[in-house]
Amino acid sequence: MNNSLKRKIRSIPDFPKKGIVFRDLTTLFQDHGAFREALSLLHNYYRDRRIDKVCGIEARGFIIGGALADRLNCGFVTVRKAGKLPAATVREKYELEYGTAELEIHRDAIEPGKNVLIVDDLLATGGTLAASCSLVKKLGATVFGVAAIVELSYLHGRDKLAGYDVFTLVEYDSEQDDRPPG
Amino acid sequence: MNNSLKRKIRSIPDFPKKGIVFRDLTTLFQDHGAFREALSLLHNYYRDRRIDKVCGIEARGFIIGGALADRLNCGFVTVRKAGKLPAATVREKYELEYGTAELEIHRDAIEPGKNVLIVDDLLATGGTLAASCSLVKKLGATVFGVAAIVELSYLHGRDKLAGYDVFTLVEYDSEQDDRPPG
Repeated sequence: MNNSLKRKIRSIPDFPKKGIVFRDLTTLFQDHGAFREALSLLHNYYRDRRIDKVCGIEARGFIIGGALADRLNCGFVTVRKAGKLPAATVREKYELEYGTAELEIHRDAIEPGKNVLIVDDLLATGGTLAASCSLVKKLGATVFGVAAIVELSYLHGRDKLAGYDVFTLVEYDSEQDDRPPG
Repeated sequence: MNNSLKRKIRSIPDFPKKGIVFRDLTTLFQDHGAFREALSLLHNYYRDRRIDKVCGIEARGFIIGGALADRLNCGFVTVRKAGKLPAATVREKYELEYGTAELEIHRDAIEPGKNVLIVDDLLATGGTLAASCSLVKKLGATVFGVAAIVELSYLHGRDKLAGYDVFTLVEYDSEQDDRPPG
């Protein structure tokens, strides 16, 4: 795990609601050195894995996913909240803390048999990433693995991603980890 | 204007509502050759313009903006719909066809005096891009210009961006331009 990157992430207590510490990656993205370091670590890890397509999850997954697709010389595919994609899609429902949400991917976004990497900014409970893996498999493609910059390991998201290669750069092992004083 | 890129864009009639032709760039992003060609054209245009920060507008502006920031060795800053950013922000209201919407940027995202490029996927009426320029100026930074892959020139978005350098790659000169038959 990478401490110089971790120092670039801002922890914001009580966002979006009381008791939650939000890990704000905008401070990492806006620092050109940290942004490129994160991309280089991801690029080095995946450069020889014969990735055909990089899938980014709306919206912050687009930031790192688009840049990583460029570095890997891959096409970039969007996984979006239901209703945003204009052509024929497949959908996948997943559980939130309260209720459910749906993600979509275009039916023709990835040809069967392609080797796909799924990217988001943060791995929390793993629900969004697991649903994205299901979407890619519904298209007949192969999920090589999932990548995120941050992993909230105390939420055990990896358990939902068993069988996939999971690669993350910065770990928080508790809600209190790196919590600002006060 | 670039016809090989234009051929990679899918026109979808009556999305999101009857009478509108939606220009779907997902087909361009998912084609690795077209994605990289678009990025190379943007990179070549901006590489000697001393850009300090690239600002991408939620959500599709993150795809090309993040990758362009990487190529230009710049930090990447997000402009988001109101309520998404966790720290202190400035806001800007702008007109939609019916009603208004608000965009935000973090107050500490860009230092005063920095030279900023604002990126979105598409320039339509120019309202979103003009509001983003105002946000960047509220932070005391300089807007070098705005970039988009697609320009709907019949909506005259450039008129709202007078005084800024505007660079786009693919033009549609009418709602009917390149409309699929039927």
